[in-house]
Amino acid sequence: MRSPTSRTDDRPEWGNSVTGPLPPSVRSRIDPFIVMDVMREANARVARGDDIIHMEVGQPATPAPKAALAAAEAALRSDKLGYTDALGMPALRERIAAFYGERYGIGVPPERVVVTAGSSGGFILAFLAILEAGDSFGLPNPGYPCYRHILSALGAEPRLIAPGPDDRWMPHARHVEALKAQGAKGLLLASPNNPTGTMAVDGRVGEIARACARERLWLVSDEIYHGLEYDRPAETALAASGEAIVVNSFSKYFSMTGWRIGWLVVPEDLVRPIERLAQNLFISTSAIAQHAALGAFDGIEELEETRKVYAENRALLLEELPKAGFKNILPADGAFYLYAETSHMAEDSRALCQAMLDRTGVAATPGLDFDPAEGKRFVRFSYAGSLDEMREASKRLKAWRETGQGF
Amino acid sequence: MRSPTSRTDDRPEWGNSVTGPLPPSVRSRIDPFIVMDVMREANARVARGDDIIHMEVGQPATPAPKAALAAAEAALRSDKLGYTDALGMPALRERIAAFYGERYGIGVPPERVVVTAGSSGGFILAFLAILEAGDSFGLPNPGYPCYRHILSALGAEPRLIAPGPDDRWMPHARHVEALKAQGAKGLLLASPNNPTGTMAVDGRVGEIARACARERLWLVSDEIYHGLEYDRPAETALAASGEAIVVNSFSKYFSMTGWRIGWLVVPEDLVRPIERLAQNLFISTSAIAQHAALGAFDGIEELEETRKVYAENRALLLEELPKAGFKNILPADGAFYLYAETSHMAEDSRALCQAMLDRTGVAATPGLDFDPAEGKRFVRFSYAGSLDEMREASKRLKAWRETGQGF
Repeated sequence: MRSPTSRTDDRPEWGNSVTGPLPPSVRSRIDPFIVMDVMREANARVARGDDIIHMEVGQPATPAPKAALAAAEAALRSDKLGYTDALGMPALRERIAAFYGERYGIGVPPERVVVTAGSSGGFILAFLAILEAGDSFGLPNPGYPCYRHILSALGAEPRLIAPGPDDRWMPHARHVEALKAQGAKGLLLASPNNPTGTMAVDGRVGEIARACARERLWLVSDEIYHGLEYDRPAETALAASGEAIVVNSFSKYFSMTGWRIGWLVVPEDLVRPIERLAQNLFISTSAIAQHAALGAFDGIEELEETRKVYAENRALLLEELPKAGFKNILPADGAFYLYAETSHMAEDSRALCQAMLDRTGVAATPGLDFDPAEGKRFVRFSYAGSLDEMREASKRLKAWRETGQGF
Repeated sequence: MRSPTSRTDDRPEWGNSVTGPLPPSVRSRIDPFIVMDVMREANARVARGDDIIHMEVGQPATPAPKAALAAAEAALRSDKLGYTDALGMPALRERIAAFYGERYGIGVPPERVVVTAGSSGGFILAFLAILEAGDSFGLPNPGYPCYRHILSALGAEPRLIAPGPDDRWMPHARHVEALKAQGAKGLLLASPNNPTGTMAVDGRVGEIARACARERLWLVSDEIYHGLEYDRPAETALAASGEAIVVNSFSKYFSMTGWRIGWLVVPEDLVRPIERLAQNLFISTSAIAQHAALGAFDGIEELEETRKVYAENRALLLEELPKAGFKNILPADGAFYLYAETSHMAEDSRALCQAMLDRTGVAATPGLDFDPAEGKRFVRFSYAGSLDEMREASKRLKAWRETGQGF
């Protein structure tokens, strides 16, 4: 038995052999989500006893807030945990809707909230509901790689836009007009963005939402890092447009990655199409995760403490990473990522990340995951771990640099 | 605010209006999974205080086995419940592989096991990994409606085959040859089948697996109802072919529907394509569900007790449903469904199910969900509830018949 994980992706069996195994589909030839490959390797090293610091994956060091865990434990004892309504438990949809009043001071009707299997489930539903096979859709570059891979797997065509430093690496209304002129069906906006951590300047999210409505393009606003800002609050696209599709999740701010629960807010006319898709593609979202998520709203105080840790981590790394040789870190407005230039350290950051993991036990993600064009010149560090881990990582990286063996 | 649930599906806004809201995609125009609509209505009635007996949905009356709940509770206290490897926790993949030795006496390497978000997640991954947009794929009719709706949403074309009573409503090797001649890429086999409860005659699953290998068609074997047989054991396609793709789940035999956890066993050459798809489309499967599933294997004794209840339910309903007017129930070899003819009671079983819910509080699913051609002549009853519920349902249905007002 060959190990399936020891193989490369440029394998011979894509061909149309008539005697060997049947070939996988062409559309399964998407790139891996590199961070997951790095995480698997890092986990294998942990299992072997290595002392690894996980800075590769957007995984909080903290578990779900205590109130969420208590709600899950109560549900284990009192609920059968069977299928729920495909759109989610009514109580959770109502609680999420109310959160928009509390956080942003806007009204969102519970009927427009769809509970999903993480933001991943939300993207699948949203893209299927608005795009045909062959449609193109604008994506920020650098950006979360699953946007383009999910679009490709569903037969749509990612159109990468590269906003650059003038716009804080965020799209501008002129990108909306350019996409319209190119025949694209819409734009994905993420502020704060992954991997850069940058946020749109104040008012920009609303400008883009209005430009999309004017040009009759779909706007999908990925707001998964909302709540994790260090300077000024993030804007929701819902404040400017009832036609925007908002994707959010309990994974990041609420510290519940492995629970696989998130939500969409969709325009009224998409509710029933999305319900039909959700019924057929997912049946329903995890019942225990829905109970836990409902409880999580009582854990805001704890989550705000965690955010303070991230702020300390961020300050520490902005000080220490340059000492370890990392340059030109993008303005880290939100989320828990630093995106650093490494072209002076290695031609391809994949080799750099591999050497860094081998020599220091610090796992980070090569930029190629997020930017197929320029990514080999960058590395993304996640600072969602503990302050002690960040201190230890800084120490190891500086020591590695001092040996002169690394780069 | 209009309620999104009060609207019909033949709405005006599919058009290309230039001023109204943007239209949903054509591919979102799949049928609803009717059983979920019925369940939502039944749940709404329960919330209003109605006394509803759920026979519409394949939802066991029992929670997860105690050993699974204990494992989940332990994980709540000891595990961060973050992202796991995209293919699943190694310990769970190993445990599932070992189960094939215990149940079927065959060896399955853990590397070929993929943990998924229910069988739903498994179908999405399997179909994306083997089919291009435009490919056609053979499906049994009647059959689980999500097969055809997932295929449609992913741009593939369902090709319904109707085996009929001679083959116990199950495909035969000649169907494989016919599909090949029509240019289809493969066949889905489900034994026991939903909604009919029928199973392939002994040796048939192996025949079909070999015919698919010979004709170079993919075989997807849905084995979600394995373990729930009342006469003879179900065959796994894996015993006959290492090229078969097996879909299974903890939802039915393991009584864990709302946990949304299942698995695939795939040919070696599909492991990496499916891993890439899983990384991008799902990231990973619920961590607490994976812990619970690992525990569930220690709850087999409890699950066997539940199967005895199903056997009692089945015997009771095979006796009582005919007295309430339901005819020609298909041979119920496995699963927990009875598929009964109702054309003598009502022209369209949707109206019959609605009247039955209104008058008796018994929720059942119209056959149209499972068979777009002949389904209006059938109703599916799920007997996964308690024996008391089955007794009460029988009483209500017989009383309804006696009033003469029903049909």
